[in-house]
This record gives sequence, C-alpha cells and structure tokens, in this order.
Amino acid sequence: MSTPSVSYSMTIRLEVPAAGNAVSRLTAAMEALGGSVTALDVISSDTDRLGIDVTIAAGSTSHADEIVQELRGIEGVTLGKVSDRTFLMHLGGKIEMQSKHPIRNRDDLSMIYTPGVARVCMAIAENPEDARRLTIKRNSVAVVTDGSAVLGLGNIGPKAALPVMEGKAALFKRFAGIDAWPICLDTQDTDAIVEIVKAIAPGFAGINLEDISAPRCFEIEARLREALDIPVFHDDQHGTAIVVLAALTNALRVVDKGIESVRVVMSGAGAAGTAILKLLLAAGVKNAVVADIHGVVHAGREDLVDAAPGSALRWIADNTNPEGLTGTLKEAVRGADVFIGVSAPNVLDGDDVAAMADGAIVFALANPDPEVDPAVARRTAAVVATGRSDFPNQINNVLVFPGVFRGLLDAQSRTVNTEMMLAAAQALAGVVTEDELNPNYIVPSVFNDKVAGAVAGAVRDAAEAAGVTAHTHTETTPRSTTAL
Amino acid sequence: MSTPSVSYSMTIRLEVPAAGNAVSRLTAAMEALGGSVTALDVISSDTDRLGIDVTIAAGSTSHADEIVQELRGIEGVTLGKVSDRTFLMHLGGKIEMQSKHPIRNRDDLSMIYTPGVARVCMAIAENPEDARRLTIKRNSVAVVTDGSAVLGLGNIGPKAALPVMEGKAALFKRFAGIDAWPICLDTQDTDAIVEIVKAIAPGFAGINLEDISAPRCFEIEARLREALDIPVFHDDQHGTAIVVLAALTNALRVVDKGIESVRVVMSGAGAAGTAILKLLLAAGVKNAVVADIHGVVHAGREDLVDAAPGSALRWIADNTNPEGLTGTLKEAVRGADVFIGVSAPNVLDGDDVAAMADGAIVFALANPDPEVDPAVARRTAAVVATGRSDFPNQINNVLVFPGVFRGLLDAQSRTVNTEMMLAAAQALAGVVTEDELNPNYIVPSVFNDKVAGAVAGAVRDAAEAAGVTAHTHTETTPRSTTAL
Repeated sequence: MSTPSVSYSMTIRLEVPAAGNAVSRLTAAMEALGGSVTALDVISSDTDRLGIDVTIAAGSTSHADEIVQELRGIEGVTLGKVSDRTFLMHLGGKIEMQSKHPIRNRDDLSMIYTPGVARVCMAIAENPEDARRLTIKRNSVAVVTDGSAVLGLGNIGPKAALPVMEGKAALFKRFAGIDAWPICLDTQDTDAIVEIVKAIAPGFAGINLEDISAPRCFEIEARLREALDIPVFHDDQHGTAIVVLAALTNALRVVDKGIESVRVVMSGAGAAGTAILKLLLAAGVKNAVVADIHGVVHAGREDLVDAAPGSALRWIADNTNPEGLTGTLKEAVRGADVFIGVSAPNVLDGDDVAAMADGAIVFALANPDPEVDPAVARRTAAVVATGRSDFPNQINNVLVFPGVFRGLLDAQSRTVNTEMMLAAAQALAGVVTEDELNPNYIVPSVFNDKVAGAVAGAVRDAAEAAGVTAHTHTETTPRSTTAL
Repeated sequence: MSTPSVSYSMTIRLEVPAAGNAVSRLTAAMEALGGSVTALDVISSDTDRLGIDVTIAAGSTSHADEIVQELRGIEGVTLGKVSDRTFLMHLGGKIEMQSKHPIRNRDDLSMIYTPGVARVCMAIAENPEDARRLTIKRNSVAVVTDGSAVLGLGNIGPKAALPVMEGKAALFKRFAGIDAWPICLDTQDTDAIVEIVKAIAPGFAGINLEDISAPRCFEIEARLREALDIPVFHDDQHGTAIVVLAALTNALRVVDKGIESVRVVMSGAGAAGTAILKLLLAAGVKNAVVADIHGVVHAGREDLVDAAPGSALRWIADNTNPEGLTGTLKEAVRGADVFIGVSAPNVLDGDDVAAMADGAIVFALANPDPEVDPAVARRTAAVVATGRSDFPNQINNVLVFPGVFRGLLDAQSRTVNTEMMLAAAQALAGVVTEDELNPNYIVPSVFNDKVAGAVAGAVRDAAEAAGVTAHTHTETTPRSTTAL
C-alpha cells in the first residue's frame, strides 16, 4: 500500500453521538486501515450529536473508497458530504488572467484601450521588435499539448490534459514569474500542430511543448525551431535531460568518477530517453548503451539492419555502444557504472544492481513504479535517484523548465540550443555545494529558491554568448518626443 | 485642435533656474499652446536649479511634439527624459497570468501538479463535460485576431494588434470577471484561421473574434459557429449591433416613435453595418435603406444586377429598401427618421440632417471623425450619438461584450444567436430608467455597474430558453466517494 498523501486527501462531514467514544473509534478505524487523519474539526454540537469535518490522507483512490466504506459501518456514525481536496482545488481551474492596471475611470480606459492604445499599435507596426517591449509577448509562454501522452496516462485528449497544463502554468509563475497560458489542441496531426503553433507565435516569447507523444514530438519540435524566431522547448525531452545530467554530474562527484570514463546503460528509447542520451553525449559521455523492449540497441540487431538512416533507433545504434554489446538489458548492466531508466517498472532486480561496478549510480525514473525498487538498489548502489517525491533525490522537471524559460526570455533568445541546456544542467548541479553533497542529496529541493535564478542566469549567458538574442538591438533612439 | 486627453499625456523631466519665474513661464507657454498641465512635482532643489516632473495632456501626437519644441525654446529650461503615460502603461504588457492557489510546499505541489492532478485528468477523460467544472475552460475566452482590421488603423498585423487584444482582455476581467487571453494569428488565410480556432477551442468556453476584416470575418464566424460547441462572437459586428439597437430603442423612446414605423437610413455596408442591419430587422425595423460608397443599395443598381445570390450586398438589396429608393445617401436621408453611419467622416452636413423627419435620430459612429459634426447635427436632430467619448451618448462596445460573454459562460451556452443579442440590447436599454432618459442620455456609462449584470442575465436567460446550454446535464451523481 502506498504512503498516505495529501493528493489523495478528502474531507468527510459526519455526525456522531455526543456521548460515548465514537470519535476515537472512527479515528482508530481509519488508522487501522492505513489512512492518516490530518485534521478533525467539530463544526456543530448539541446534547445528542456532534458534527465533525475530518480530513484524511489516503494512499490511492481505492484506498480512499475503502476508508469511506469502513466509516459507513461504524455504529452511530452518519456520513455527510465527502469532499476531495485535490478536486476542490481544481474547481473552476487553477489559474486566471489579471489586469496589471486598475480601470477606474475614462482616463484609465483611454490609455489602456481606445483611443490611446492606437499609438502603441502604430509604434509596433513601425517596428515589430517593439512588441517585446510594449506587450505581454516579452514574458509570455504558450504551454502547448495535443493530449496524446499526458503524464503516464496516455492519449487522453486535450480537455483531460488541461489540468496538467494549468498546473504547469502555475509553476511557471511560482518559480520564474512567467505568464504561461495553456493551449490544448484538438488535433494530433503533425502538420496541423506545426501550422497552428507557428500561427499563434506572435503573442508569445517561447513555446513549451508538453505531453506530445513520440515520435511526432521530435518532428514537431524540429520543424517549429526551424520556422520560429522564439525558442521551442519540449519539456518532456529536454527538461528531463537537463535534470538527469545535473543529477548525474553530482552523483559522479559523490563517487569520484569522470563523465568521460563511465559506462552508462539506459533503459528506454522514447522521447525522454533519446533526449537524455543526446545531452549526455554532448556533456562528454563516451560509452553509452541503450536498451529498449527488444534488448540492447546495436547496428546488427534484426529490426535495425533495414532501419532507415534517419530513424531514431538507427541514430542510437550509430552513436552508442562502442563496445558492440548485444543481448539483454540485464546483461548490459553487468559492470556498468551508471543505469538510467526511463521505461517500465521492475526491469531490474537487486542482483542486477549488485552486478554493476563499484560506486554504481542508479536513476530509476519510471513513475509511479521505478525500474528497480530504490530501497533494494540502495543496498549495493552508491547513489540512487527516482522520479518519486517520497524517496531522496527526486528527478523533477520543476527544477529546470522555469529557470530555462526565465533565462531564454530575459535574453530575448530566438532559439534554444544544446549549449544552453548544458549550461542549465551545470548551473543546477552547482546549486548543491560541496558541503551539502552526499548520496542522498545530489539535486536541490524544488523549493530551494536559488535554483531558478541559477539556471536562468546560465541560460541567459549562454544565449548571449551564442549571439541569438533580440534585445541587443532594442535600445533604439526615440522616434518622436512622445516615445519613451 | 482636439481636446487635451490623458491618452496623449506625457511626463517631462526638466530643470529650471531656482530664482525667477521660469515655472510660471513654462506653465503659461504650455497652456497658450492648448496643453493642459495635470501635475507638477518638484523632485530636486538646490540653490541654483529646480528639478521638475511636469505632466501635460496634449490633444494629439503632433500637438505633444509641438509642446516639447516650445519648452526647448524657453530660456533657462533644460529638458530631460520625456515619458509618455500611455506608453509607460504598456511596458511589458497590460495583463498577466496568476495562480489561484499558493504553492508553498510539497503538499500543495502534489495537489496542483503531480501526482494529484492525474486523478482530475482521468475524471475529465471519463466525462469530457467535466472540463467545464474542473478547469479554466468554464471562465476562459480566446480573443482572436489576425490583425487585418485593427481599430481604424487597418491591416497592421498580429504583433501590432496585441495591445488592443490585451486591452480587451483587461476589460473582460474588469467588467465581467472573465479570463480572456489574446491569440494573435500570423495568418490571414480564412481556411487556416478556421482550422486554428477549431483546434484551440478545447481550453476555452467562448471565442471573441476581433478586428478581422470583411468579408472574411463573415465566413470565419459562420464556419466556426457551425463547427464548435462554444459560442463564437465577432465583437466588431455584433457588439456594435447590440449597443446600436439599445441606443436606438431608447432614442425612439425619447422621440416617441415605434421601431416598426420608422425609416432607417444607414451609411456603410461593412462588417458592423451588415450586423447592425440584420439585428435591426430582427428587432422589427420594416423600412431600412443602406447606402455604400456607390449610393443607395437596390436590386437594380449596376454592380448588383449580376451579383451572386449569396453576396452580402445582394442580401442587403433583397432585404431592405421596400420603397425602392435609388440615388445618393443624401437623397435617401431626406425625410428619414433615423440615420446610422458606420462609414466615413463628413458624408452628411447640417442641411442633410435638417431635411430629416421631425424628431430625427442621428448616430454618426465613424471614429475619430463622425459622418456629420455632432454639434451641427444637434441643431435640428432630436437625438445625436457618436463613437467618441467627448460627446454625450457614446456608442461603445464595452457596454456589451463583457455582459454578453458573462451570460454565455454562466449558461455554459454552446452557441450565441439572434434572440440572445436582442435580449442583450433590450437589457442594456433597460438600464436607463424613465427618469434618467433624455436626448443626451440614451445609453448608460460604461462605468455604470448595473450594465454587465443586466446584459449577462438577459443573455443567460435567453440561452436557457433556447435550450442550448451544457450545464443542465452536469449535476451528475459522484462516480466514486472521492468525487466531489
């Protein structure tokens, strides 16, 4: 059974007899079932009955159902409304639009809207780059999805994806002050998505692609980067890759190994796996081996002999596995220094981890159930990380995407490239000081307030070094005395 | 020269000698030029010099330039930075995204984002209508433009249109609590716009089309209404039509004439003109005559004999002008009860208005220069209205679009139809009580706080009466004990 979590928290209104021990009986019953009582408020009381709101954290939806059933069975207890805290937070959505200026009177109206706005429009018509100065473009990011690969839930469509995109927008604001708005697309056609995102780009300074399934996500991102003069970043790929590289950098500091000398074995060749691989190679990894559901990827593998030169697997075969390994993932892991899983639950066991090299590093990132039980892996591995919040070393994109976009927007960058991603990873790794670094602390907390600024600064500097920013040209002389 | 306005207001930093009368000389100089000094702050002072920020309202951009030139010429005055208040309000944009909930700790994160959000996603995947309950969809409107007909500025493109769309979004929030976000499209292709708006619709409960040129706006709106299950409203057409009908309703109360008995002559057959005409006919006008740049529209007019049956002008010819008038606008206006202009400056003069029927009503809505000088028209007409804020009876869409969308969203309406628009117009007219009604007060102020609620209520009722709402089906029983 999973640990009770507030994300499965519910508030139950119930009535119990005022006399007797009904309250302690129901608390005991819930705790016997593994529920955690986090609040208990008496909301009404008379000589016969107590009205109580009790808030309980369960471990899962079915666990919550089980607790409610048990409560129904306790003599003298009457159940009222059952409110789910997570659902309550979602009622009516999690984000909103705000005006920055009050509109109190006709003067305000005449500056914010007509007739005053016309002069601002004309200034931009004369010099379109001024849109980055005089509109929301400068600080706005579109969070674009087609709902085809939402979290681990699969192809649930654009409406069902919206709560994730709203959450992402809320995180953009919380951690980087960015104004993001969800754009959930009612199409999964690659060409259509490319055309739509190109068309909506004028109002945004960046595009965050989200939860778009592979392999379409590769083509969509590549074509949009080619077409647009604002950065396009598929967070599921590159956000993950950056935080993995940061975590690996610090894990290698813990075990005192160099990135060029380690053998890295990866499980999973999807969107995240491919992006991680490419960034690790760019960061200096010389010996990477990738396994998918058919085993280790190598040029001689049956399904690869005839693969097209441009295919993703073919690219992997051509750029990894210098020792020409064949066979299974379990075989490849033997003697490896690093395992990185972005695939499926329980593909490895404790014996596999024990067979790795001394000072082994295991990143088991499948969610919610990792490639290997982290408690088991920790018996022999030097450093273990997962995607879960209830183990140390959580590999979480929230560490990356706010700062990356903050840096891109501050630089008014026209693109995002590998150098910027490497810089972001190094900056994130650098937030963990030598004093703090240990096997259970290779990445900072998402609530560490140094993270976004460090990542943003590194990305901004890398964008400026690459000469791909717009802002160096915007300090124009006023075109009339009434310009700023 | 135009009246000084804060929308042409600037703040000028300058230094003057501390001794002598430099301050009064510069104030006098600005007022002699027709500038209005609205603030004067001494920001630094020593024995020799005073530093002053002076805020001046000018009548136009060139007027502002003239004032600045004059200041440069005053002996002893040194000019510093000239800041434009309207531009200052636009720096970095006028709107932003806000999270509704704080994200303070891991518990908050686990409800707003992963893992808690997954359960909300799955609830919507099972029942897509729940998107209206559990996401921003319920209260969100896309303000969509292609920048092809922005205010009176013409085809200035999507980036230059953005300040108007931001202003519109700010007004949606201020007057109706609606979360609107600008979508400025980098295409003016009708098919592409239709496909894009269809694709982005899942995240919104309504589409406000804005500043899209005729005749493309008609086809785009019609095709989107057909395709989507949320209302699509081109404000330049219908917002204008609704406020004109409301104003006409009250103007007819002033002159005590019935809508079925008056002859209405219109100048202009563009997007606004066509929408006004159709709504007036739906409201009961029996005798409407439309003139465009070629004169009165009638079936026998040279350019109409061969016009396709579906063309807009053909439709006008077939549905107006029951007396078969021909000739010029000026001829048609003779003896007319009502003139409505949505065309060009100065197409009528005082003699034309004097030749109208007794109790004449003149709506001269071309902006910024009306079809006839309203001061001149007022000499003989009983009621005069314009689109300008510096005359009585401003015909302003802000009176309409916030309330219309509030009503549509409250009803969870799947469409918007003529009955709803008629109801909106009657509700807006009804905000002006019998006691308040007079020739200079036929429409309420945009800051009258009864307006949006009255319009919203009428539209909501009309939507429910039409049976086109989604919300009557959403009170479902909980699917599990953890649902709300």
